[in-house]
Amino acid sequence: MSDFDERFKRGMEILQKMGREKTMLNQKELYPDLYDISVGYLFGEIWSRPQLSLRDREMITLASNIALARPVGTHSHYNSALHIGITKEQIMELIIHVGMYAGWPAIALAVTQFTEVLAERDEQTK
Amino acid sequence: MSDFDERFKRGMEILQKMGREKTMLNQKELYPDLYDISVGYLFGEIWSRPQLSLRDREMITLASNIALARPVGTHSHYNSALHIGITKEQIMELIIHVGMYAGWPAIALAVTQFTEVLAERDEQTK
Amino acid sequence: MSDFDERFKRGMEILQKMGREKTMLNQKELYPDLYDISVGYLFGEIWSRPQLSLRDREMITLASNIALARPVGTHSHYNSALHIGITKEQIMELIIHVGMYAGWPAIALAVTQFTEVLAERDEQTK
Amino acid sequence: MSDFDERFKRGMEILQKMGREKTMLNQKELYPDLYDISVGYLFGEIWSRPQLSLRDREMITLASNIALARPVGTHSHYNSALHIGITKEQIMELIIHVGMYAGWPAIALAVTQFTEVLAERDEQTK
Amino acid sequence: MSDFDERFKRGMEILQKMGREKTMLNQKELYPDLYDISVGYLFGEIWSRPQLSLRDREMITLASNIALARPVGTHSHYNSALHIGITKEQIMELIIHVGMYAGWPAIALAVTQFTEVLAERDEQTK
Amino acid sequence: MSDFDERFKRGMEILQKMGREKTMLNQKELYPDLYDISVGYLFGEIWSRPQLSLRDREMITLASNIALARPVGTHSHYNSALHIGITKEQIMELIIHVGMYAGWPAIALAVTQFTEVLAERDEQTK
Repeated sequence: MSDFDERFKRGMEILQKMGREKTMLNQKELYPDLYDISVGYLFGEIWSRPQLSLRDREMITLASNIALARPVGTHSHYNSALHIGITKEQIMELIIHVGMYAGWPAIALAVTQFTEVLAERDEQTK
Repeated sequence: MSDFDERFKRGMEILQKMGREKTMLNQKELYPDLYDISVGYLFGEIWSRPQLSLRDREMITLASNIALARPVGTHSHYNSALHIGITKEQIMELIIHVGMYAGWPAIALAVTQFTEVLAERDEQTK
Repeated sequence: MSDFDERFKRGMEILQKMGREKTMLNQKELYPDLYDISVGYLFGEIWSRPQLSLRDREMITLASNIALARPVGTHSHYNSALHIGITKEQIMELIIHVGMYAGWPAIALAVTQFTEVLAERDEQTK
Repeated sequence: MSDFDERFKRGMEILQKMGREKTMLNQKELYPDLYDISVGYLFGEIWSRPQLSLRDREMITLASNIALARPVGTHSHYNSALHIGITKEQIMELIIHVGMYAGWPAIALAVTQFTEVLAERDEQTK
Repeated sequence: MSDFDERFKRGMEILQKMGREKTMLNQKELYPDLYDISVGYLFGEIWSRPQLSLRDREMITLASNIALARPVGTHSHYNSALHIGITKEQIMELIIHVGMYAGWPAIALAVTQFTEVLAERDEQTK
Repeated sequence: MSDFDERFKRGMEILQKMGREKTMLNQKELYPDLYDISVGYLFGEIWSRPQLSLRDREMITLASNIALARPVGTHSHYNSALHIGITKEQIMELIIHVGMYAGWPAIALAVTQFTEVLAERDEQTK
């Protein structure tokens, strides 16, 4: 197995632990190289480094994304956080805490996006 | 003891646990109301909420600040992180991880600021 | 009346003057503590400070939010600005001016969001 | 012809070369002065400066907008880039490259917006 | 007098009212065209528009710059604000207020920069 | 030669073409893994992709960094741009152009940093 195959495999394993092995497929359709970079590099080489736990990595990913207040790219992380056992209450406290460092409109966006995630999850369990 | 005094006291207790009860004194000198808000509200009401551990709060504070790449306001958090037992290696991994979500220049700034903090600590222990 | 009740009351009074006592109810439903912080702290302790007029506070809130170009969290402030007598022309001049400091895409977002607010207001007065 | 008329004319000529002489009409409707500034100043005085080629200006506009990850204001530039001959592959490489400097959520937003542009173009050529 | 000369003259008049006719000379030395654009366009065409007062324009400029937390480009505006009669107390309240929308590290930077401005002014009046 | 060695080698080759094979050594000293990632991944895998020219990649890197207005991380790119033949005039036009999309304080920072780079180069050629 080549180095590339190995790191892609490692990336998919992390994504499976996070319950999101079917995300970023829009990248795959638009430009396969980007998908390979996201899975093989971001997840296969960075997320899989052993010095921080998966929970730590998810917490700090949520914190940076909420701070940067990007329109997209955070929904999947709320799902992963819940999937690996971070509670709704802890996520809300993280939103409030990060909001002090990034400002109230960052809170407003996080509330909107997290509410969308919770609604979709409710819908799926019906 | 009034509510204000209580939350100010709670804020100072958190700051002591973080080893930084002498920070933000430039705020106190410039405009005491701001210092009261920072200690009494940010630390006394937000940081002291029980739903997340102090370690979690320090990790996500570092993550948001590194993501936002502000020129000042992060040095004291590197010190606090080390003070409460987050290792240098974990901080470096946090910088690398957040850098994927905020970009390489955010890594460059974090490396500069964390290096300054480490140099100052070396100086103090001589 | 406790300190908490007093500042919550002060916050609601400010929100009433701004014509938006029914905003942020999504925060209330999702996590009541956040709603209490937004009303009691942001509006009850910060907005209610006497050293700047309500008009000044609305102008600088619009300016920071337009500069930060957040996807949500500004619509209610366009409504409040109009409610307290800042004219449509002044808001447009503020958008143009802030755009010079935050860039043309910040203008594009502000135009989109302000147009949505004006359309909704037209709808309501029919 | 007055200076103002001249620069407005120059701005419209650039916009025609970019295949977007019908953009920003929402600005015209909302507040004509803003439209005059955008066409006459941004395009008539800045984009029309001779020291950089139109292709260079479009590449660096895309790069800044993708880096800033604004919710609106970039779609028209993907269209113009394609219109003047920058290929889909080059745009995707630009997105990946800028993503390293602005972070993965900036890539996620760019992918979403560029996909919307491509879908709309497909629709129009049917 | 040509249109260009007129707007440059208007720009210098605004800058004089703001007590900063000697700023941006580093632009003039590095690349005169940029200086002409800054004086003639930013100040001559935007700041000189009559629909907002000079005080309003300075307040919203400070608000956007503090929100964006740029390393440079704000010092001159603290000086201008004081020059046209906005008090130190009002500036501090603006910093605190904007800090709620842009986060505590934006406050930390504003405090650092405003303190530098005040120290330099003290020095000059000795 | 392992995959890792190959991409590190490719990264160093790009850095040599850019005249900056001695940059980022502070990363190497602080945490060698980060240096390996920067050279081997950012330069060895992204910058070395063939679909965009080195000139294009330098132009869009400058554009994103100027837009993001980071305190550090851009100086080396001004040097590389000059090294590969982008002229001072073109860099100034790029700064002005990007400034329209990121705002005037981004121009102010770019002028400061580019001036520092030019001064250091003058010093070295004495």
